[in-house]
Amino acid sequence: MPGPNTPLLDKISVPADLRKLKPEQLRQFADELRAEVIDTVSVTGGHLGAGLGVVELTAAIHYVFNTPEDRLIWDVGHQCYPHKIITGRRDRIRTLRQGGGLSGFTKRSESEYDPFGAAHSSTSISAALGFAVANKLADKPGRGIAVIGDGAMSAGMAYEAMNNAQAAGNRLVVILNDNDMSIAPPVGGLSGYLARLVSSSEYLGIRKFASKLTAKLSRRLHGATEKAEEYARGMAMGGTLFEELGFYYVGPIDGHDMDQLIPVLENVRDNAEGPVLIHCVTQKGKGYGPAEAAADKYHGVAKFDVVSGKQDKGPGGGPPAYQNVFGETLAKLADNDPRICAITAAMPSGTGVDKFAQAHPDRAFDVGIAEQHGVTFAAGLAAQGMRPFAAIYSTFLQRAYDQVVHDVAIQNLPVRFAIDRAGLVGADGSTHAGSFDITYLATLPNMVVMAASDEAELAHMTYTAVEYDEGPIAFRYPRGTGTGVEIPEKLEKLEIGKGRIVREGSKVAILSLGARLGEARKAADRLDAKGLSTTVADLRFAKPLDEDLIRKLLTTHEVAVTVEEAAVGGLGAHVLTLASDTGLTDAGLKIRTMRLPDVFQDQDKPDLQYAEAGLDADGIVDTVLKALRHNSASIEEETGARA
Amino acid sequence: MPGPNTPLLDKISVPADLRKLKPEQLRQFADELRAEVIDTVSVTGGHLGAGLGVVELTAAIHYVFNTPEDRLIWDVGHQCYPHKIITGRRDRIRTLRQGGGLSGFTKRSESEYDPFGAAHSSTSISAALGFAVANKLADKPGRGIAVIGDGAMSAGMAYEAMNNAQAAGNRLVVILNDNDMSIAPPVGGLSGYLARLVSSSEYLGIRKFASKLTAKLSRRLHGATEKAEEYARGMAMGGTLFEELGFYYVGPIDGHDMDQLIPVLENVRDNAEGPVLIHCVTQKGKGYGPAEAAADKYHGVAKFDVVSGKQDKGPGGGPPAYQNVFGETLAKLADNDPRICAITAAMPSGTGVDKFAQAHPDRAFDVGIAEQHGVTFAAGLAAQGMRPFAAIYSTFLQRAYDQVVHDVAIQNLPVRFAIDRAGLVGADGSTHAGSFDITYLATLPNMVVMAASDEAELAHMTYTAVEYDEGPIAFRYPRGTGTGVEIPEKLEKLEIGKGRIVREGSKVAILSLGARLGEARKAADRLDAKGLSTTVADLRFAKPLDEDLIRKLLTTHEVAVTVEEAAVGGLGAHVLTLASDTGLTDAGLKIRTMRLPDVFQDQDKPDLQYAEAGLDADGIVDTVLKALRHNSASIEEETGARA
Repeated sequence: MPGPNTPLLDKISVPADLRKLKPEQLRQFADELRAEVIDTVSVTGGHLGAGLGVVELTAAIHYVFNTPEDRLIWDVGHQCYPHKIITGRRDRIRTLRQGGGLSGFTKRSESEYDPFGAAHSSTSISAALGFAVANKLADKPGRGIAVIGDGAMSAGMAYEAMNNAQAAGNRLVVILNDNDMSIAPPVGGLSGYLARLVSSSEYLGIRKFASKLTAKLSRRLHGATEKAEEYARGMAMGGTLFEELGFYYVGPIDGHDMDQLIPVLENVRDNAEGPVLIHCVTQKGKGYGPAEAAADKYHGVAKFDVVSGKQDKGPGGGPPAYQNVFGETLAKLADNDPRICAITAAMPSGTGVDKFAQAHPDRAFDVGIAEQHGVTFAAGLAAQGMRPFAAIYSTFLQRAYDQVVHDVAIQNLPVRFAIDRAGLVGADGSTHAGSFDITYLATLPNMVVMAASDEAELAHMTYTAVEYDEGPIAFRYPRGTGTGVEIPEKLEKLEIGKGRIVREGSKVAILSLGARLGEARKAADRLDAKGLSTTVADLRFAKPLDEDLIRKLLTTHEVAVTVEEAAVGGLGAHVLTLASDTGLTDAGLKIRTMRLPDVFQDQDKPDLQYAEAGLDADGIVDTVLKALRHNSASIEEETGARA
Repeated sequence: MPGPNTPLLDKISVPADLRKLKPEQLRQFADELRAEVIDTVSVTGGHLGAGLGVVELTAAIHYVFNTPEDRLIWDVGHQCYPHKIITGRRDRIRTLRQGGGLSGFTKRSESEYDPFGAAHSSTSISAALGFAVANKLADKPGRGIAVIGDGAMSAGMAYEAMNNAQAAGNRLVVILNDNDMSIAPPVGGLSGYLARLVSSSEYLGIRKFASKLTAKLSRRLHGATEKAEEYARGMAMGGTLFEELGFYYVGPIDGHDMDQLIPVLENVRDNAEGPVLIHCVTQKGKGYGPAEAAADKYHGVAKFDVVSGKQDKGPGGGPPAYQNVFGETLAKLADNDPRICAITAAMPSGTGVDKFAQAHPDRAFDVGIAEQHGVTFAAGLAAQGMRPFAAIYSTFLQRAYDQVVHDVAIQNLPVRFAIDRAGLVGADGSTHAGSFDITYLATLPNMVVMAASDEAELAHMTYTAVEYDEGPIAFRYPRGTGTGVEIPEKLEKLEIGKGRIVREGSKVAILSLGARLGEARKAADRLDAKGLSTTVADLRFAKPLDEDLIRKLLTTHEVAVTVEEAAVGGLGAHVLTLASDTGLTDAGLKIRTMRLPDVFQDQDKPDLQYAEAGLDADGIVDTVLKALRHNSASIEEETGARA
């Protein structure tokens, strides 16, 4: 199928080309860019709604500002597809999110027009401030321009950055992309505030607005009288929150109206005397009927048919997603336990907390993009006798690490951490991989760390966590669907720190933690076929370790291999530490630890990512065989002069 | 020396006793409480200025609210000495911060009046919200009351919590303790905002204020007109920032005036219909002349003479503090390198960034209590070609873990992390210990992790970090003063991933990382005296490991011991992983990893903490001797049926 007809867009490969257009051509240009985005995502899948919402903004920013010298930073970066199309990457745009293709986010290695990569929310103002200050110190031209959504503004990090904005002088421009929607509907006081700003304010005629704006930007209002006067005038109504933090507040303006965008941006470019916040109102999914009509505005979509909007969601049926097993299990358990509650940081459906919220709306809390607050809020709930579940992706729990340490672990409070997206995650790439949680959690005193090998185990672990009031407990599980095992009606309370043998053998021991268990079993079958009788254990716990089981496995098998979907410092390190602490290594111990490699892996299909990491059946078999071949002769050689 | 004369205070052991006083007795009570605090800290040392600033507030809160059912949470907790005195702990108050004594912060295990421990900043509103919501769900009485300083309000976490305040209904009370000063002078937009609130507002006569307040609390203002009217009236001038986030804003009021505090708190207690923020203006160090006069308001003091205020700072002279070696070295290097800049999160003197700032004020950035922003700001600076040093305590860097992963390590940006307070820290106890950084940093791809064994090494590492532009690099060093070695004029650029042998032996190898090197040398001397010839290596790098050196040490000595001031998952784990990856364990390897124990250790003198941890010369010698005695006979026994 041929792509859309895009005569203007076809002439633009970089923003310098765009700047040759006349202002009156920009409307058509934006329409063509939008058509190209829709056509692209229909082929690749990915984030659609966010990109459609910023088509005009993308064109206007590159038209008015001098990118790449002016450093443009897209917060989160999932709205950057139109930006990529007009910054030299149109020829590869249909490789988005594929193995070896363009990233679905901004990425420094791809283009000089991506000065700062992203994927997690709310980093853009801090980074823009860094660029602005560096240029100011070096007396070089170039602004920092951050485009940040209203949802991202709920994160503390954005506030910390705004609080420091003055350091940039007039080199910082923040464009608040207010679509009243991040992934989920907005929550919290800030959201209400922005809504009031928009609803209480008329869009001024642009001629009147522009002249007022020039006056405003050239004179900072300070005194209480002037402030009151400003209120009375109704101009810039209520931008005080931002103004009090040190910004010139401009807006709200219609982020789809080129006739507003261009003069306002030009005005800011030419007249600002300090950091400016431009409040743009946009519509997520704008200009594509099916997206506008959908509840989630086509936030993230599969491949789809452009005419009908129908997504190619695959055959359906099949095993449930892990997140839903968690959410539904917890909801059921909460029917009989009023102490259970669930917390999500702006990811109700991604974490399955939406299932819980349907059944128990008063005990489900969406705190916004605010993992730090979410964890300590959970600690407060736990300290008052509740049984809180903080359901946070592995990669996002990094945002709340100090809260896990300081508010939860040190106080030994029974907060339950339901850690989704553990291990490699596919198309979202390295920024969303859940690689480090075992390491950063298992090093903490008081912490219990579990990993589920399938969806039935996840259900058992959810129940185990409910019943565990002695201190903090975490359980991790992968992105995607389960293995298809049945989830028993009656859930089991697992014994803390005890693993299980899932397959008995005698020569090789595979110590698996988490969802690589299926690959471990496959590897065991192949090893058995080679005459190497193989035991497989599902350790269940990275902390506390099942010391008896592990010591037994290490000492009764010729070779032992640990397998985990995590980086160095996790299960393997703890098993080795146990072995050396107890002197098991003294007399010789063939043990290998399999883990994620020491690189940030790029996006690909999860199976291919794991194959690249060596964490599949092939990799396990290889590791075992190599260890067995690694005979005493070669050791002698290596150890050289050993006494 | 007898304590102060405190007839009223002597009758009070818990807040219920306090509530029997008449309001007109509270002034005298507060004076006595203040005298007791001064006398206590003159004996124990500790945080003085903050506690003196909240004497009246402490008395008023416990007088008006129903603690401990109303859950009172002191943010940071270092201002809690007066609180401890009137909540059943006066008899032990002179054990503050001593081994086995009371904590210098609030602590759950000490008292039911400490519902939530603290020590890091800005957690109190989140925790209070947890208590409030738990009680609301269970339909039990009890509010969450957070007392938080203006400095702590600059942290994103406080903003995230405020943004969620509505969830608590009228069970949440936030008392903003505005003393225009945290540890250092205030920074940022918020600080300016608070100053404008205070300066533009007259303190109303209390009768007038109270009646206005009642009206205010019973009716929430929404519309633009009412808002403008409110401004015009001048009442609650400018509390909009807090009001827009969903609070009733009350204030500013004089936090030392009992005649204002009591009626306002009672009014809030009886009439609030939603979350309330009470803006109290206080003076740090209030009521003690020497503290009021000092620039730092006696934030943290040694023992002192009450009459003169003269602190017992010890003999002076001696080796410099690590923080100052860092700050002065960096300042000197920056004389010839305009790219070097330094970032601190509200700890200019604690990190030595003050020394840098004196020499290069335009390149020193105090971002407030905002580690998240600070790190990503540094990443932005690095991406624009600067050489930024983020100087942050180990324990506080936990606040920015995701920024280290997502903004720095994934993008391989050359941010330099100067990590002070690594390892155990003495009187500040477990909340301030820097135990986890090696583990949580060395697990990250691209990251270089160094540890300094003395102040000369710290200077070399500072220089090495300046010159290293290939990616992120971190170097850690302890709290306190150096070892007294000379710092060479000409600094050395260390080879990345290379350690050094500091003492040659043949039978025992001690692989030391960081400032335990002195103890390792002592242990080596004792082992030598026993006929066990001992090598000591200073590995310098936890990542990348000096693989050649380590393999050589492991294979040419009978026993090897790693030593680090860090929790499990760090150097020891990486060395073991190297050993098993390369098959060194296959033929037998006597190796032990010495690390911090798997508990949160309480405060004590650092030497005693390390002795408790087993990380001193005695512990090293013991570990070596035990490993050597752990002979093959006992291994046979343990390994049982091994083939």
